[in-house]
Amino acid sequence: MERDSQNVLLASIRRLTRAERGPQLRRVITRTHPAELAHLFGNLTIGQRLMVFETLDDDEKRAEMVAELDSSLLEEFLAELSDDVISRLLMVMPSDDSTYLLQSVPEERKDLLLDAMPADDHAEASSMMGYDPESAGALMVTDFLAFKEDVTAGEAVQILQKGAEDAEIVFYIYVVNDHEHLVGVTSLRELVQQPTGRALRDFMIRDVLRVGVDTDQEDVARMVARYNLLALPVVGESNHLVGIVTVDDIIDVIRLEANEDVLRMAGALEQDISLHRSPFASARSRLPWLMPSFVAGAAGVFIISRFDQTLMEASLLVAFVPMVLGLSRNIGVQSATLTSRGIAMDSIGFGKWRKVIGRETLIALICGLLYGLVASLLGGFYLAAVGGVSKASAPTFGLVTGLSVFFTMVLASAFGAFFPLLMVRWKLDPALATGPFFTTTVDVFSVAFYLTLATYWFG
Amino acid sequence: MERDSQNVLLASIRRLTRAERGPQLRRVITRTHPAELAHLFGNLTIGQRLMVFETLDDDEKRAEMVAELDSSLLEEFLAELSDDVISRLLMVMPSDDSTYLLQSVPEERKDLLLDAMPADDHAEASSMMGYDPESAGALMVTDFLAFKEDVTAGEAVQILQKGAEDAEIVFYIYVVNDHEHLVGVTSLRELVQQPTGRALRDFMIRDVLRVGVDTDQEDVARMVARYNLLALPVVGESNHLVGIVTVDDIIDVIRLEANEDVLRMAGALEQDISLHRSPFASARSRLPWLMPSFVAGAAGVFIISRFDQTLMEASLLVAFVPMVLGLSRNIGVQSATLTSRGIAMDSIGFGKWRKVIGRETLIALICGLLYGLVASLLGGFYLAAVGGVSKASAPTFGLVTGLSVFFTMVLASAFGAFFPLLMVRWKLDPALATGPFFTTTVDVFSVAFYLTLATYWFG
Repeated sequence: MERDSQNVLLASIRRLTRAERGPQLRRVITRTHPAELAHLFGNLTIGQRLMVFETLDDDEKRAEMVAELDSSLLEEFLAELSDDVISRLLMVMPSDDSTYLLQSVPEERKDLLLDAMPADDHAEASSMMGYDPESAGALMVTDFLAFKEDVTAGEAVQILQKGAEDAEIVFYIYVVNDHEHLVGVTSLRELVQQPTGRALRDFMIRDVLRVGVDTDQEDVARMVARYNLLALPVVGESNHLVGIVTVDDIIDVIRLEANEDVLRMAGALEQDISLHRSPFASARSRLPWLMPSFVAGAAGVFIISRFDQTLMEASLLVAFVPMVLGLSRNIGVQSATLTSRGIAMDSIGFGKWRKVIGRETLIALICGLLYGLVASLLGGFYLAAVGGVSKASAPTFGLVTGLSVFFTMVLASAFGAFFPLLMVRWKLDPALATGPFFTTTVDVFSVAFYLTLATYWFG
Repeated sequence: MERDSQNVLLASIRRLTRAERGPQLRRVITRTHPAELAHLFGNLTIGQRLMVFETLDDDEKRAEMVAELDSSLLEEFLAELSDDVISRLLMVMPSDDSTYLLQSVPEERKDLLLDAMPADDHAEASSMMGYDPESAGALMVTDFLAFKEDVTAGEAVQILQKGAEDAEIVFYIYVVNDHEHLVGVTSLRELVQQPTGRALRDFMIRDVLRVGVDTDQEDVARMVARYNLLALPVVGESNHLVGIVTVDDIIDVIRLEANEDVLRMAGALEQDISLHRSPFASARSRLPWLMPSFVAGAAGVFIISRFDQTLMEASLLVAFVPMVLGLSRNIGVQSATLTSRGIAMDSIGFGKWRKVIGRETLIALICGLLYGLVASLLGGFYLAAVGGVSKASAPTFGLVTGLSVFFTMVLASAFGAFFPLLMVRWKLDPALATGPFFTTTVDVFSVAFYLTLATYWFG
């Protein structure tokens, strides 16, 4: 149902931008949450994205939308914006978002943008970017309100009433001593419930859970999850309070880390199945992850080809089976995992199946060509060298293994991209597409293909 | 580092319970967060668990710890507690926790416990349990504060000051009309910042994001994540406000769902690698997930055994390769995934490797025996029937395929349980253990094993 309403929204934005119906577009966009717009961004053309961006009411909303874009989309979109526009966004963004934005522009432009910032913000942004991107330091917001110990509950409420507009105010109220060291915590609720004349030091909790600027984001997430927190204070050296990590950013961390785990399991370490990335770049980043199958497969060739001479003829043929199966399954699972994760994270779908399958097949063509070539050399030369095949039939054998590796990889990849999309169509879980049914099916077809080729040439 | 401090804590709790040092144990336990104690629970004996439970200060802390236990541990622990003790826990628990607890006791006991509850709580608990356990209704807390539209900011603060102890107060303040229908939302911060005489209806936001009691928890989690919320109101029929889902429960949902995705990908749909569950029960729940490999493998046998007669001898041998590989890899990945997820979710580790590997091997013995038997019948009878092997050598062929399936499954499973533990030892990511390197290595050894057996009998 949610997906349906998104499709309706997407369709109307597309129609209204194409027809250049400014006022109606504005009405639709004003009604829509910036996070939702960010979510649809990948499905719009560059021109449509710019129209949506400019139609938004003010820089706050623009900044909010931009901060919600996935990293590859953000990179692409920032390239379309002028330095001036980006500077205005940076002015209104909380510190964690501006760090994210600055990390998404090329080095030179980053320096330009930093120089254009007011001195204070510049210093802050530079120090934030000094932290590991996966640490508490990069995740925290630095605009926060902390109170001194001797402030009373009533005074604290008054300070809040005067408003500190920029500051990220969460449910917790952190308390610091004269050296800005974190010494306690209380909550907005306590503040309201305590007698107005009572000093924070008399009712604050002194045993505050905290993390250091260098704490890994996974550890931060684990603490937030275990202790059911809404925020965690971040301290620098000698317990100096420097920022706050809020639970909404933790949720993003948990989702991204879970996604990374899944991709790593599948041996596919691309961030996501961005349709915007060049297939050559994708192939390059995936090639090394196919290496384990190849190495283990090559080990199989060595082991099996040394088998008892009586089974030699059969073993020779069998020797290459683990390699052919391993490589085709490996790339097939990469395609299936990236596609099904893309569906789960909502970055593909929307009837883009032709593009997804086409792109995966193209990547497999590149990877298959390379590994097919190596397999063919191994099949031809190595086996001739150990005397497994005669010098005369070595080239044919090399051809059979190379072509088998190439074609089974391409077919497995196309099937891997197609299968999760089919599952969604049939209202089944796309994750099934990377399970044992998928891999064993790829095995069967790969063996059949390999034997067909062998039969054709040797039969 | 975090894991180290947990090991120290665990060791001292074990030592102090064994030595029955009450006062020292109390000191350690009072210093430790109930969630942390819950986290260590799986590593204590029943007696130690009861001691820790009783040593806790009061029922609130006991209830907090119990609510943090994983479902299998909770079930086990509740069986040790008297009805009276559980009733006391239920009295102090928020509604979502009591629903979770009541779902973890046997049907008869649940009725007894419900009857012992005060009439109000009884009615509420019964209605909560009527919701799908994966819906917003089961996830919400029903003790919350909502204000009427004409209440002023000042009055609202006063009501909060008088305190409503049981109510879950979050950052958001929900506003209802006279029929208890949800009509607006504001925040504790706004409440404090607005002029005291201003009515809520004059500054509340009217466009409130909400979910229905039947909304699936994954959709609830997606909304919270997308709109960076701290809580979401849950409405019943005709927009009647019935509860609030808080972000801490959403984090648990996201983690559990991510974990489920990973397990489903691996074709291992057990909830977790609970060392408390009987291996037979685990084998029974895993057997159907091995079926896809078997079915696809059997299809491979049919396809490959019909190949050109000239390659017949070799093809016959090759025909069973996908099945042997598929089954061993499938169970190996199950073991590897459950072990590495157990490590990631912190439910195993702590030097339990012998137990984990032993248990996985035992499960594989059961599954291997069954699938080995079926494979052996297929190898013997089917191939004799299609004339692939002579009647005389059919039993031998059946024996070779059956034994191969059995032994490779057991070896792959032991290796699958061992590998992630080795990765942790070497400070590498345990998720690597389920990737292509693992599966292709299993392939190579399975083929080698199969051919060795075949050579021995036919060579």
